[in-house]
Amino acid sequence: MAAKKKLKVFSLGGLDEIGKNMTVLEYGGDIMIIDCGVAFPQDDMLGIDLVIPDFTYLQKNKNKIRGIVLTHGHEDHIGSVPYFLRDFKTPIYGTRLTLGLVDNKLKEHNLSGVAELHCVSPNQQFKLGCFNVECIRTTHSIADSVAIAVKTPIGTVIHTGDFKIDYTPIQGEPIDLRRFAQLGTEGVLLFMCESTNVEQRGYTMSERTVGVIFEDIFEQSPNQRIMVATFSSNIHRIQQVINSAVKHQRKVAILGRSMVNAVATAGELGYLNIPDNVLIEVSEIKRYTDQEMVIITTGSQGEPMAALSRMASSEHRQIEIKPGDKIIVSASPIPGNEKTISRVINDLMRKGAEVVYEGLMDVHVSGHAKQEEIKLMHALIQPKFLLPVHGEYRHLKQHRDLAITMGMNKDNVFIMHNGEVLELTADSARVSTTVPSGQVLVDGLGVGDVGNVVLRDRKHLAQDGLMVVVAGICLDGGRCVILSGPDIISRGFVYVRESEDLIEEAKKVVTEALYTCDQKNITEWNYIRNVIKEDLKNFLWQKTKRNPMILPIIMEL
Amino acid sequence: MAAKKKLKVFSLGGLDEIGKNMTVLEYGGDIMIIDCGVAFPQDDMLGIDLVIPDFTYLQKNKNKIRGIVLTHGHEDHIGSVPYFLRDFKTPIYGTRLTLGLVDNKLKEHNLSGVAELHCVSPNQQFKLGCFNVECIRTTHSIADSVAIAVKTPIGTVIHTGDFKIDYTPIQGEPIDLRRFAQLGTEGVLLFMCESTNVEQRGYTMSERTVGVIFEDIFEQSPNQRIMVATFSSNIHRIQQVINSAVKHQRKVAILGRSMVNAVATAGELGYLNIPDNVLIEVSEIKRYTDQEMVIITTGSQGEPMAALSRMASSEHRQIEIKPGDKIIVSASPIPGNEKTISRVINDLMRKGAEVVYEGLMDVHVSGHAKQEEIKLMHALIQPKFLLPVHGEYRHLKQHRDLAITMGMNKDNVFIMHNGEVLELTADSARVSTTVPSGQVLVDGLGVGDVGNVVLRDRKHLAQDGLMVVVAGICLDGGRCVILSGPDIISRGFVYVRESEDLIEEAKKVVTEALYTCDQKNITEWNYIRNVIKEDLKNFLWQKTKRNPMILPIIMEL
Repeated sequence: MAAKKKLKVFSLGGLDEIGKNMTVLEYGGDIMIIDCGVAFPQDDMLGIDLVIPDFTYLQKNKNKIRGIVLTHGHEDHIGSVPYFLRDFKTPIYGTRLTLGLVDNKLKEHNLSGVAELHCVSPNQQFKLGCFNVECIRTTHSIADSVAIAVKTPIGTVIHTGDFKIDYTPIQGEPIDLRRFAQLGTEGVLLFMCESTNVEQRGYTMSERTVGVIFEDIFEQSPNQRIMVATFSSNIHRIQQVINSAVKHQRKVAILGRSMVNAVATAGELGYLNIPDNVLIEVSEIKRYTDQEMVIITTGSQGEPMAALSRMASSEHRQIEIKPGDKIIVSASPIPGNEKTISRVINDLMRKGAEVVYEGLMDVHVSGHAKQEEIKLMHALIQPKFLLPVHGEYRHLKQHRDLAITMGMNKDNVFIMHNGEVLELTADSARVSTTVPSGQVLVDGLGVGDVGNVVLRDRKHLAQDGLMVVVAGICLDGGRCVILSGPDIISRGFVYVRESEDLIEEAKKVVTEALYTCDQKNITEWNYIRNVIKEDLKNFLWQKTKRNPMILPIIMEL
Repeated sequence: MAAKKKLKVFSLGGLDEIGKNMTVLEYGGDIMIIDCGVAFPQDDMLGIDLVIPDFTYLQKNKNKIRGIVLTHGHEDHIGSVPYFLRDFKTPIYGTRLTLGLVDNKLKEHNLSGVAELHCVSPNQQFKLGCFNVECIRTTHSIADSVAIAVKTPIGTVIHTGDFKIDYTPIQGEPIDLRRFAQLGTEGVLLFMCESTNVEQRGYTMSERTVGVIFEDIFEQSPNQRIMVATFSSNIHRIQQVINSAVKHQRKVAILGRSMVNAVATAGELGYLNIPDNVLIEVSEIKRYTDQEMVIITTGSQGEPMAALSRMASSEHRQIEIKPGDKIIVSASPIPGNEKTISRVINDLMRKGAEVVYEGLMDVHVSGHAKQEEIKLMHALIQPKFLLPVHGEYRHLKQHRDLAITMGMNKDNVFIMHNGEVLELTADSARVSTTVPSGQVLVDGLGVGDVGNVVLRDRKHLAQDGLMVVVAGICLDGGRCVILSGPDIISRGFVYVRESEDLIEEAKKVVTEALYTCDQKNITEWNYIRNVIKEDLKNFLWQKTKRNPMILPIIMEL
């Protein structure tokens, strides 16, 4: 027999970062993929819309790919599917709501029908090449989320996806702890467990606790119009708002494109329970009094184009905020969004609205497991090897420390980077090679055409703007004589009308530079351009302590 | 007698924003100022270094200004002093450490000696025109902080500055609650109270609690090198690190320019108690073992140029992080800094350091009063009128609500904007006029020369970069004929080497545009430029969904 095959496991996203989750399992001639998400750009990725994984390795092994299994319908788990499907004809497996959201996404990208979508139920088993795959019900801030158990030829692998342990979910079954226990008892080779909230002590509260607070707020606000901003994918949160609305005889209007889509999809698929005549169109709001209305809206992260922000800044075409409106921001800021949310809250309050947000009242709970929940999963599964996923380095390390306190051998825990390959046999695991991984930037229609050079230029331009120097010169007989200009055009550097002297002086510096070239009989284009650049740069720095990008445009006349 | 004079109170910064605190009191021919701070730029102020108040009103009333009184030495209270002193010869009053820090700042700006600095002690009274001024000891995250009580001809005004109620400060007296009570009993017309933490329930813990945690960490890390990152101005925090270092026979090295300056100033003025032979130079660190060293460093906000960040990214010339280093980040993120701090923590951990930060252990306490402390101040002072200061709108409103729950008449609480003037008599207060206020942006040496136009251009350039179109044409006899070009130079738009086709097509679009002008006998410069701009813009948007800035440079040859 040939040398025993090994199981390779690696991530193209989600390790040492938050987002663009994508995990690959490879055994012999078979590859299966768990999730295919996007990340949102870092602050220094100016102008970038999205970040997707690098598919290079998969492109080279296209014929091995048996399928993608999705854990749930959040962007950081499904957002790259349309980009993936440009190059791959891979069947996609997921639960019903997840596939419903993927289908919406494919329609937006004009990719409807390019991929087989296979709807699977929790506990249903299916084969992807040599892999026996099973989805296990979990609970999270979106309905229909699952963990993935994979029976490989050398042992069982479990990937949690995102989860919390909610014993009282709003709809459907609680997380299937017994199945995890059963698989654990049978023996689990590798456990990939999410790490988002691993730094936080204790338990995440049940989604249901938010409903209790909503009920309090509705009780206390009988005469006020109520608005709730939350994530459009948080179907259970939306259900709870609707529950309170129904109880208090209020109509519900849905605001914001992604919220309208999510409610439509979830409603069609039976994930929202909305009595007839409760939902109304935004255009119908004016027919109802304030105490008859609830508005559910996007914008809980302060996104400038979302409905809540537009209402806050009086830019919404249909709805105006008025004194007495009660607005619940039912979300917590994703790191980096604190200031934009705060701006929206301030704007709403300035219009006289009462705004309720996390910190003032418990109008949000996380969808991610805290330490005690993660420990519970470890206790049930007791894997041979642990690979913490979904987290920055600090989270992965904290997760390792937590596992060690539970008795795990530290050599059996792997803190890995995207692209690093974990090679497993039935009783060993080691990091072997690496495959190409990294960030592919999406900017408008361009995928991967913006890299470090472009970003560096954008940063330079953002910092101090630009100065274009235009001159027409004659390079004849070793001379370098100015025939027209120099003229200067600047953008983003100084307010030109109030800086005429500076611009005049800058022209003189360029004239001097060209004169020097003439004196020295320099007629080489690049040299002349560099002299202008250097002299101007030094002059501007000395005068302003700023360093605009300088573009000398010298034409020979 | 003439009409009774009124007291005017307004802020040039600190209302509806965090930072650039500056409050003005005017009565008859006298103006006094409380604080003169900077704000840090918002995310959309690309390339801006600092934001300072608009001094226009003060410039027009220069002869009335009797003095500036500073509450404490933080940047958001003293940072604009050097900019102010370019135009004003106003005497400055403050406690010893505050003036020491101002003096450092003036030296950096080559402004030493331009202003009289008057050192005042708590409870010492002094006159500024018609105002009788007294500083009252408070506690805050910097030593020597005070509130300001001003006896005006129509009643007493109290401004808290920043404060918390710390009964067990590290050095000096606790906050002088009895003096506040006494003034309250005598009657206070207007209370200006800070609002930073007014959304938070309960009490801020004493600074001393952090020392206890430090002690625990030192105890548990006998063999590790210990580093502590904190704000350079947090002299008491630094003192507590030094106390633990001394107790454990460790030497202390100070890292980072602002930390070195702060420790030097505080040491000289007697605000730090450091036994001989404890402080060592950074260059001497190598003479000591890890267990003999503590390093106190800047960079607790993840500032890219600060010592901690440079060590984390291996860019520090003198110190390298190594496995086993214990690093305490003794600060909490200022909103907006969450991600940069997280990046530094990840980098440090990747190098094998153990990093302790807020959330894992209580290694930081706030310097600002929470709800119960603010209530205590209200209970002591019981002012006639309240003007909440130092906060965004949400904080000011929350502060009003809190005062109302304590029985204050809501008509006596004023939520105001910068520039709005509160006009008071002994028994009335109303918002009357406004004075010029706003944000003056500092970029390099330029103060106020970057405004909306420049920022809008920077934003445009940051988003999609730039395309310069160069062509030489001949405009003769109604013709518009291309003689050279069109050439295209782009920066920050696409990676040109991989987008040659796009650039070639773009040139064709320009050629077509010029050809159309020629056909239509258009020879007007602006018109030609606009045609090029529009056609190219539409082409690029359709091809890339990006919108770079387009600069057509057309020369007549």
